Amino acid sequence: MSHDYAASADAMGRRARAAARALAAAETQVKNRALEAVAERLSVDRESIKEANAADLEAARQAGLSPAMVDRLMLDDTRIDAVARGVREIAGLADPVGETIEQWERPNGLKIERVRIPLGVVLLIYESRPNVTVDAAALCIKSGNACILRGGKEALRSNLALHRSIAAGAESVGLPTETVQMVDLTDHAFVNALLKQDRWIDVVIPRGGEQLIRTVVENATIPVIKHYKGVCHVYLDASADPAMATRVVLNAKCQRPGVCNATETLLVHQALAADYLPGLLGQLADQGVTIRGCPRTCDVFDRAQPASEDDWTAEYLDLILAVRVVDTTDEAIDHIARYGSSHTDAIVTSSREIAQTFVRRVDSSSVMVNASTRFSDGGEYGLGAEVGISTDKLHARGPMGIRDLTTYKYVVRGDGQVRT
Amino acid sequence: MSHDYAASADAMGRRARAAARALAAAETQVKNRALEAVAERLSVDRESIKEANAADLEAARQAGLSPAMVDRLMLDDTRIDAVARGVREIAGLADPVGETIEQWERPNGLKIERVRIPLGVVLLIYESRPNVTVDAAALCIKSGNACILRGGKEALRSNLALHRSIAAGAESVGLPTETVQMVDLTDHAFVNALLKQDRWIDVVIPRGGEQLIRTVVENATIPVIKHYKGVCHVYLDASADPAMATRVVLNAKCQRPGVCNATETLLVHQALAADYLPGLLGQLADQGVTIRGCPRTCDVFDRAQPASEDDWTAEYLDLILAVRVVDTTDEAIDHIARYGSSHTDAIVTSSREIAQTFVRRVDSSSVMVNASTRFSDGGEYGLGAEVGISTDKLHARGPMGIRDLTTYKYVVRGDGQVRT
Repeated sequence: MSHDYAASADAMGRRARAAARALAAAETQVKNRALEAVAERLSVDRESIKEANAADLEAARQAGLSPAMVDRLMLDDTRIDAVARGVREIAGLADPVGETIEQWERPNGLKIERVRIPLGVVLLIYESRPNVTVDAAALCIKSGNACILRGGKEALRSNLALHRSIAAGAESVGLPTETVQMVDLTDHAFVNALLKQDRWIDVVIPRGGEQLIRTVVENATIPVIKHYKGVCHVYLDASADPAMATRVVLNAKCQRPGVCNATETLLVHQALAADYLPGLLGQLADQGVTIRGCPRTCDVFDRAQPASEDDWTAEYLDLILAVRVVDTTDEAIDHIARYGSSHTDAIVTSSREIAQTFVRRVDSSSVMVNASTRFSDGGEYGLGAEVGISTDKLHARGPMGIRDLTTYKYVVRGDGQVRT
Repeated sequence: MSHDYAASADAMGRRARAAARALAAAETQVKNRALEAVAERLSVDRESIKEANAADLEAARQAGLSPAMVDRLMLDDTRIDAVARGVREIAGLADPVGETIEQWERPNGLKIERVRIPLGVVLLIYESRPNVTVDAAALCIKSGNACILRGGKEALRSNLALHRSIAAGAESVGLPTETVQMVDLTDHAFVNALLKQDRWIDVVIPRGGEQLIRTVVENATIPVIKHYKGVCHVYLDASADPAMATRVVLNAKCQRPGVCNATETLLVHQALAADYLPGLLGQLADQGVTIRGCPRTCDVFDRAQPASEDDWTAEYLDLILAVRVVDTTDEAIDHIARYGSSHTDAIVTSSREIAQTFVRRVDSSSVMVNASTRFSDGGEYGLGAEVGISTDKLHARGPMGIRDLTTYKYVVRGDGQVRT
């Protein structure tokens, strides 16, 4: 079947823009009732959702997807209930829209205000987990944004079923049918056409592997908010409390190694190399962690494998840790600047001064002192549900909460002022 | 001469990134002394600047540039003094870097802070006026950013001379030579190679015509902050005070028609069409304004030319005004959403309620009530020197001051917390 992708993408964008105007004007109460209705529909529609999901799961198994991947796809009653509960929690968040961020008056009497407004139309591109479909839709509704969702091909039937519940919920309170649109064309060419709709779409948030995100960056004329990967570091300064250092490193590496805020590289001040480091690495190895060490690490810990240059940029997402002994805090900071991913980097130190140097000179989106990198998370920061993580410099950095789905406009009020 | 543009662009970006690290750590005092030194050097170097400028002016005349364009290029003692004064004014602005934007504590004792930091490396692409070279460099230095400047080809000799003074000033206080880099390759292919350096460059700000900006958006993998054009509207509501309406419209159209915040389209409530509009349009015509009207405008004002569909999206930058009579405020708001450029749109009304509807439903970067669109300007808003104007939704909107050249990071301080 031939398809005019550009025209379809334009039409989809245009519908989203029209919906966005209605959403931007919607009262908090209406948005909350929509979310309540969505949660209710998800519960009511659970049999058809599970049926669609079963077809996805069957196809995934036939296609030979790994058990872990199949598990990520799976929706059962417990997960559907959790998704619905998440929607109700988002309804409970404060509405960021309409907030006066700042206001001041000029000598000529003009009153100037920065007022928070929705971004407009958000395009989300993500991979397998179907719960992202509902989370993203709910966050966009609450923040007054229309959205276009493009999930993983392998979750398409599940996503379409979830989308029916979302659309029904939104419509039931009078919000536009196109409040949330789901892309059902699986061709990459259609996504690429969407990525050119800067006339209608205000931002694209890709979530997934590095290759997916790179493709979005290269093809989009729409602004992108993203993080490629999380190569998080813990640096143990000479003054680090040994017990605290061990606790933080074990947690940062082992508590959940498959996520982006898990630590991938340990940097250790030389003063700790001989006496402290071997014991720490022994504990890590005992928990199943493979150590890839610099020569000085290998000298003091014989179970270490020698690290190659690639290990310093690796996002293992696994029980592997790259370890490097450094001479100074500056060397640790330079290592992070050179190899890091601007996600989350931590120092353990008992020196206020060294902590301050680290905080000032490391420009990652989250910089931590005496805490596990695993805290870099919207929920842990108290932002509520997380939209994603940004390691970019523009707009939002670090864990993104609902407020990061808004922007502002200047509102200027006068009594007939003109410029001279 | 063959040239490996990608390698040169990568090297330039890499040098800028190294300089950015030094600038981010520079004390306010050092940055201010650098600006003072730049201002001083501009004054000392004025003869060589004027000499370089004379060569640009001569080439411009030979190439047949319009007198207006040649005038924009020209640097004389008065203009050099003004540029140096501008640099000293920027030194006087508050340093935005290091500010704690927000802080809070979590139940587990983690202290979370959002701290303002520089963007990093800023690429500025602009057209003819050489004073932009110095303004942009000074704003970047003050906000702790390294920058790469790419000015108009016709101003290259002037820009290189100005750049020598800037670099000498920065170096004289110990800032890196690459604090400010000037692109001296005039090939478009080199600019396109720079636009792919997302590894080193954090943002590109193009300033100039729509075509220049579109080319940047289509070629960049770096985030872009931009505005394509200013199609600003004034809407006169039925309740508008007639004297105020006339004053605002005359100012918005005529005070300086060649700039992006001048009004291009007037929308008028039907209640004002018969009695008020002809007099207003007569006054505009008397000031040399050509009126392009909708059929209802042409009915009441016989000196109007009929407007075509293109007139509603035109940025005339000239003494031309498109005029449309609308039935309702909603129709005016819909017109702005359809044809506007999200720059600046104003209403004149004496109704608080109608003003509020307009403010809530128009999502342009600046929305004004009872004031001339000409106020949409960094200086007029009290932001200090203006970096540019953004009509985008991400990061900064409206007139951009020095603060808009910064971003933030999360700083998290604990006493050994780990995640459970």
